[in-house]
Amino acid sequence: MSTSLPPLLAPMLSSAAMRAVCDDMASLQNMLDFEAALARAEAAAGVIPASAADPISSACRAESFDIAALAEAATNAGNLAIPLVKALTANVAKSDAAAARYVHWGATSQDVIDTAAMLGLRAGTDALLADIDRAIAGFAGLARRHRHTPVVARTWLQHALPMPFGLKLAEYAAALHRSKLRLQRVRSQALALQFGGAAGTLAALGDKGLAVAEKLAEELKLPLPDAPWHTHRDRIAEAASVLAIIAGTCGKIARDVSLMMQTDVGEAFEPSGEGRGGSSTMPHKRNPVAAASALAAATMAPNLAATIFAAQVQDHERSAGPWHAEWPTLPTLLLVTSGALAAIVDIAEGLEVDAARMRANLDATDGLIMAEAVAMALAEKIGKSDAHHLVEAASRKAVKDKKHLRDVLLEDANVTAQLDADTIAKLFEPMAYQGASQALIDRLLASLDDK
Amino acid sequence: MSTSLPPLLAPMLSSAAMRAVCDDMASLQNMLDFEAALARAEAAAGVIPASAADPISSACRAESFDIAALAEAATNAGNLAIPLVKALTANVAKSDAAAARYVHWGATSQDVIDTAAMLGLRAGTDALLADIDRAIAGFAGLARRHRHTPVVARTWLQHALPMPFGLKLAEYAAALHRSKLRLQRVRSQALALQFGGAAGTLAALGDKGLAVAEKLAEELKLPLPDAPWHTHRDRIAEAASVLAIIAGTCGKIARDVSLMMQTDVGEAFEPSGEGRGGSSTMPHKRNPVAAASALAAATMAPNLAATIFAAQVQDHERSAGPWHAEWPTLPTLLLVTSGALAAIVDIAEGLEVDAARMRANLDATDGLIMAEAVAMALAEKIGKSDAHHLVEAASRKAVKDKKHLRDVLLEDANVTAQLDADTIAKLFEPMAYQGASQALIDRLLASLDDK
Amino acid sequence: MSTSLPPLLAPMLSSAAMRAVCDDMASLQNMLDFEAALARAEAAAGVIPASAADPISSACRAESFDIAALAEAATNAGNLAIPLVKALTANVAKSDAAAARYVHWGATSQDVIDTAAMLGLRAGTDALLADIDRAIAGFAGLARRHRHTPVVARTWLQHALPMPFGLKLAEYAAALHRSKLRLQRVRSQALALQFGGAAGTLAALGDKGLAVAEKLAEELKLPLPDAPWHTHRDRIAEAASVLAIIAGTCGKIARDVSLMMQTDVGEAFEPSGEGRGGSSTMPHKRNPVAAASALAAATMAPNLAATIFAAQVQDHERSAGPWHAEWPTLPTLLLVTSGALAAIVDIAEGLEVDAARMRANLDATDGLIMAEAVAMALAEKIGKSDAHHLVEAASRKAVKDKKHLRDVLLEDANVTAQLDADTIAKLFEPMAYQGASQALIDRLLASLDDK
Amino acid sequence: MSTSLPPLLAPMLSSAAMRAVCDDMASLQNMLDFEAALARAEAAAGVIPASAADPISSACRAESFDIAALAEAATNAGNLAIPLVKALTANVAKSDAAAARYVHWGATSQDVIDTAAMLGLRAGTDALLADIDRAIAGFAGLARRHRHTPVVARTWLQHALPMPFGLKLAEYAAALHRSKLRLQRVRSQALALQFGGAAGTLAALGDKGLAVAEKLAEELKLPLPDAPWHTHRDRIAEAASVLAIIAGTCGKIARDVSLMMQTDVGEAFEPSGEGRGGSSTMPHKRNPVAAASALAAATMAPNLAATIFAAQVQDHERSAGPWHAEWPTLPTLLLVTSGALAAIVDIAEGLEVDAARMRANLDATDGLIMAEAVAMALAEKIGKSDAHHLVEAASRKAVKDKKHLRDVLLEDANVTAQLDADTIAKLFEPMAYQGASQALIDRLLASLDDK
Repeated sequence: MSTSLPPLLAPMLSSAAMRAVCDDMASLQNMLDFEAALARAEAAAGVIPASAADPISSACRAESFDIAALAEAATNAGNLAIPLVKALTANVAKSDAAAARYVHWGATSQDVIDTAAMLGLRAGTDALLADIDRAIAGFAGLARRHRHTPVVARTWLQHALPMPFGLKLAEYAAALHRSKLRLQRVRSQALALQFGGAAGTLAALGDKGLAVAEKLAEELKLPLPDAPWHTHRDRIAEAASVLAIIAGTCGKIARDVSLMMQTDVGEAFEPSGEGRGGSSTMPHKRNPVAAASALAAATMAPNLAATIFAAQVQDHERSAGPWHAEWPTLPTLLLVTSGALAAIVDIAEGLEVDAARMRANLDATDGLIMAEAVAMALAEKIGKSDAHHLVEAASRKAVKDKKHLRDVLLEDANVTAQLDADTIAKLFEPMAYQGASQALIDRLLASLDDK
Repeated sequence: MSTSLPPLLAPMLSSAAMRAVCDDMASLQNMLDFEAALARAEAAAGVIPASAADPISSACRAESFDIAALAEAATNAGNLAIPLVKALTANVAKSDAAAARYVHWGATSQDVIDTAAMLGLRAGTDALLADIDRAIAGFAGLARRHRHTPVVARTWLQHALPMPFGLKLAEYAAALHRSKLRLQRVRSQALALQFGGAAGTLAALGDKGLAVAEKLAEELKLPLPDAPWHTHRDRIAEAASVLAIIAGTCGKIARDVSLMMQTDVGEAFEPSGEGRGGSSTMPHKRNPVAAASALAAATMAPNLAATIFAAQVQDHERSAGPWHAEWPTLPTLLLVTSGALAAIVDIAEGLEVDAARMRANLDATDGLIMAEAVAMALAEKIGKSDAHHLVEAASRKAVKDKKHLRDVLLEDANVTAQLDADTIAKLFEPMAYQGASQALIDRLLASLDDK
Repeated sequence: MSTSLPPLLAPMLSSAAMRAVCDDMASLQNMLDFEAALARAEAAAGVIPASAADPISSACRAESFDIAALAEAATNAGNLAIPLVKALTANVAKSDAAAARYVHWGATSQDVIDTAAMLGLRAGTDALLADIDRAIAGFAGLARRHRHTPVVARTWLQHALPMPFGLKLAEYAAALHRSKLRLQRVRSQALALQFGGAAGTLAALGDKGLAVAEKLAEELKLPLPDAPWHTHRDRIAEAASVLAIIAGTCGKIARDVSLMMQTDVGEAFEPSGEGRGGSSTMPHKRNPVAAASALAAATMAPNLAATIFAAQVQDHERSAGPWHAEWPTLPTLLLVTSGALAAIVDIAEGLEVDAARMRANLDATDGLIMAEAVAMALAEKIGKSDAHHLVEAASRKAVKDKKHLRDVLLEDANVTAQLDADTIAKLFEPMAYQGASQALIDRLLASLDDK
Repeated sequence: MSTSLPPLLAPMLSSAAMRAVCDDMASLQNMLDFEAALARAEAAAGVIPASAADPISSACRAESFDIAALAEAATNAGNLAIPLVKALTANVAKSDAAAARYVHWGATSQDVIDTAAMLGLRAGTDALLADIDRAIAGFAGLARRHRHTPVVARTWLQHALPMPFGLKLAEYAAALHRSKLRLQRVRSQALALQFGGAAGTLAALGDKGLAVAEKLAEELKLPLPDAPWHTHRDRIAEAASVLAIIAGTCGKIARDVSLMMQTDVGEAFEPSGEGRGGSSTMPHKRNPVAAASALAAATMAPNLAATIFAAQVQDHERSAGPWHAEWPTLPTLLLVTSGALAAIVDIAEGLEVDAARMRANLDATDGLIMAEAVAMALAEKIGKSDAHHLVEAASRKAVKDKKHLRDVLLEDANVTAQLDADTIAKLFEPMAYQGASQALIDRLLASLDDK
């Protein structure tokens, strides 16, 4: 397969399904599907002879064309459609010279190329929807399983407070679900037939332009827009932005996982497997290889989307340059987003959780992580400010003396005057201080049914 | 006013309304509005004493704070919320020491900063909606006025075919309308309260976290999300992408206008005015100054959006770095988008159209621009292929002999055998060859009622 | 060939030479060249048996490896080097089991991949240097030929003043020459061997690490850096930025050419050729197809470079994600830059200039373009301010009455009191008002000898 | 001060010195310095009366101008130079009406604005050079101090091997030094006077254009380029890319520091200080606040540089849009780069190192981190392959049985047959396996003298 990622790197950075979508042969077929549908639509509308539709349709098979020759010819022509139409015409002529006259009738290169891009985008969106569903289901399952597993919540990479690991996982599922809705919106709103003829007026079709456009849209099952959109690329920009948002969410999850996989943390791991993430020289290592793919995508996607945004500035009725910039960029963006999502599916479906290590890490600061819990409990007795100062002092003492905060508190008469030993001990149970976490998990899981 | 554009450049690159939205004083007030609403919500929920709400609310006025001092203190603290809460607490304490204990109760810096950003985004969206309505109305009016004004359609910057200028203008209106719907979607779906406490669990509020969150959302008239979204920035990324899409559409329109304003083209102009776009050394020039602002924004916005996308990769429950990168970037993006849109409003409401020059330019190629019209008319008689060859030959002859294509055709017996002189003359009426243009204009104008 | 552009688009957007450089097979060979050189260097340093070098070297031929299998295996391994070393070891073992033990001795995946990237960058730089020389020579020749051809200088897309076309062309040559020097600097300063072993300490080589590194650098003819640079990517970022600068300069030239090719301007054209830039439906069009390729590159390159910059933030001694993001991005950047430059070579070597049209366009404003020349001449007599006002008034009158400025001036007694008719007529000779242009052309052409 | 960062955020994200450089008042003064120098140069060249120079020079003081009024007027004019020159002329006229005629003589807006940008860039470069020297010195000192402090080298965020911490620090110093050389190159090569008059031909100065340009360059101590460079922005793009490279290196260092500061790692810390990086709710936290500023810059800078690259595509002799995009972007890039560097200076001069924790972390994997050292030692006896397998098995057993690798090895007869207990113990001394580290540190430190 030949795509906008080199074959040597493509499997690492994209999904197999998306590589099939973005393959040159598939792109060519999308263009040919447009030509075939156009012939059928025009025959039905009485614009071209009914007898021309079949010979044209039959010739629209990508495997009959020479990709290398088309690519070379495109250099002089300025786009792929010109040599493709020429080659298609020649192919049709072999079987039916009369029909060959009606190839591409009334259409322009941009009609073929843009509509084909929309067909590719539709297939790409479908490929992503399949994977995003798996990722959401995976994290939702993990969230349910770990809704009572305590883990360190980290802010600024510092231990902050305990939280149930399930809350983190439910956030992943919900964030992906929000992007699933975005993908579905792209599917229903950002796709649109492009069909305008040489200047966007459908002039060559006389008074039958709209009728052909309607039939063509039906043939291709693409929404008919209010008018040709040639140099208004907002729909494509919207699709690109959803891809970048998904890559970003995948990057966020991957970053978390790579941090949890640190030798120094060791709380959760990508699924292991034969030869997976190992190192020839360091037998004990467990490299976050899926996370790396997702993070690579999250590094690339913002700038690929920026190219699509920048390419919105297109001259008059067809631009020379920005339009071309979209051609390799949109597939690359689809591919790396698919790679990010595939990596996240892998994680969502196979995450290995070390709950014991999570618990041990919660204890690593000798109880300091529960300082706020203690302060809040004390605040109810002596007010926020005094409580804060008491706990702050105790925390400093704990650090200085390398003692557990609980033990420092138990030795502090100001504290024990307010809280008994048993109460203090319970304050150091991580999940005793999880606030609204369980309700939040429920809400997040329920949001997965949002449409 | 002090914003993320320097005052010396801000008026050229942003709207006054957006400068008010993004002003430091406004940003500070948004943060204080959060603190005031939090106090009221917590008092109502019985989390803090009812008596604490008023003193805190009353102290939440931006003009009481020292921006320079807060800014300096933020450097050590790592964010603005920490010194602001400290200063607010001190201010409240002046009037009510007891109430001062309850400032910012159970909240974290990210709650204040992110919710304030959402309030700013809401105000910014409203400012843009006001301007986008003006731009749409302006172009819709122009489209109606010029629906029968012929102009050259240009592809690859070459003369292609005639089109009614109103079609181009209706496309502008419709593209802006699609982004109006996007802005409204941001308004209703991408805004959300951020409220999670130190680690996103609302732990410090015990079992009242969700109740406070609900009241707080009500107070601020912000949607209550399913859970705190601290390190899931997809909503912000979506808002940013809509801004970049708008800047792109403005850039597309501005590019067209700047091209039409060329001395060599002279078809349409930004509104003139005292000192507007003049040159001290070249008295005859008419510079596209509004278009330049929009094109500047269209150059900047894609990369500002890319920063927001890149900043999605945030660690665990609060990140160190990417979050900070959003702070100056989102306002800059709002500002330049507002500047682009203001420039487009200026154009939409004051475009000066030189229909005579448009007509003259249509004739500049001595009828070649109507070659397709002739070819299509001939095709009905002798088939596409023969017609194409006849017209191609005639066109070459017209160029070679520097004659009008019409005259060459009239001298060609193969042509006159099919078309009489009168028919040929009519084929050179630009608006006789506009295909579906009028219907497309109607469809585009009707789309402005889409919701 | 399989690169990071899809084969269907690659010829339009890249040079054949660069496609050869960035081909998967070439990338694989670069990696194998490292392994072969390493074996020779280590044998020479006595680190591995002398007898191991030959069998390893002989096996390092890319065509013996299965690209698809390596690519699949890399997904699990996290990089290409791991499966490649495994396959290479197996291949060596077929002929010499003893030698097979010494494959990749003491090296790490990053050593292979980064050094191979440097070899690719070197070949890519050489390919660009060859083309940039052609472009410089082409524009220098054109500049000499057109040093007295007057053309409209345009600011803000408005007619400003006359200038010799040769000055514009000499600026192109000089800008490209500055980037030639940048490329040569990249060639001599930004390339460097990467060789550090598992953690950048060369620990596995005991006390022979540096000796091996020196020999290895010699073998590969790459500069030996002060130390392994694994996660310090400044050299790569510098190379990427030079590529983006070149793409930008190509884009600037292409923008000018596409504007000059406008039907409305018609001053200069890309070389024509069979099927070149034509349109099937509009026989008179002459599309700027080379310019479009360059402008596409100039749209893409800034964001590809941004990805490389963003990828500088790499963790500790090897990063997971940003490093991966470089892999497809750097070749894409090389490719599109090569495409931009190839398009500019095409223009530099074949630009068709219509001096008559240039002259006609200078007259299009009925002498207004010479207003400054007249004002300066008058200023010598009556001062800048009065002269400016006189000419401003005359210019307005010329526009209002649709007369030539010269004729208006000849009717103005205030003017004729200072300048006689002959002097006034000479003031309207474009090249009489070219200031330092000829000296500037000389200086620019002389700068092409700068080293 | 008013810059392209809002005052509320500027101290956190930029250095005070750079805020002074980028302040509106400073920008205005740079423009006025151009006008003053121009008057002196033209008086010296006999282009304007000698008596005009002093009155013009004296009026060129930024504090006499109304920034808000200029900014508003610029909106209509399309740039700041037009209203500034008008206001300056009026100011000069107050004292000397005759001199006022010669303000801005023969120059164009772009001359003022671009040359002022160059003066700002020079001052900005100087501010960065001062800070980069401090950062280099700081890390060089730390590198010397810690050249024998063992720390875990981490690849893919996994423990890989031991390394001396000084090697990491010396790499920081050397990477910054390479960028110091880049900054010096920008200082000497990328700065250049812009002076071309209305169309870049210096036409208004007759035959004295070059003479004035030479004197003007001398006055401003800026290199005189071969010709005006108005729409060739490669020098600015080069400067921007060096800034982005510096921000990237700062981001890399900051990333490392933030990772080392993790509660779970605790090896090195930003300097502490009153209120520094604390959290009101979590008394034990130590937030990486300096690192966050650097990482924010490293997130923003790539995209700011991308805008500068994209803005290279400028039309003809002056562009409308891309040029404007540079105006707020270049200062923002200078500012955030200065902020990143200031944060790194802070770290370089105050890093707190916990060598005991570093040592403890080396032991965290129960000796696995020394597996390669053991394997290499064994390889000398029994060959690489067998050694690798032996150690791999022992490592697995150590993990499975939760024993120290040393103890597992001591129990393995195959191992003890080759290595005695004492030798095995010594293999677990981290700094016994540091390869060429000490030589590499020497080489890196020596590179700091490179010019």
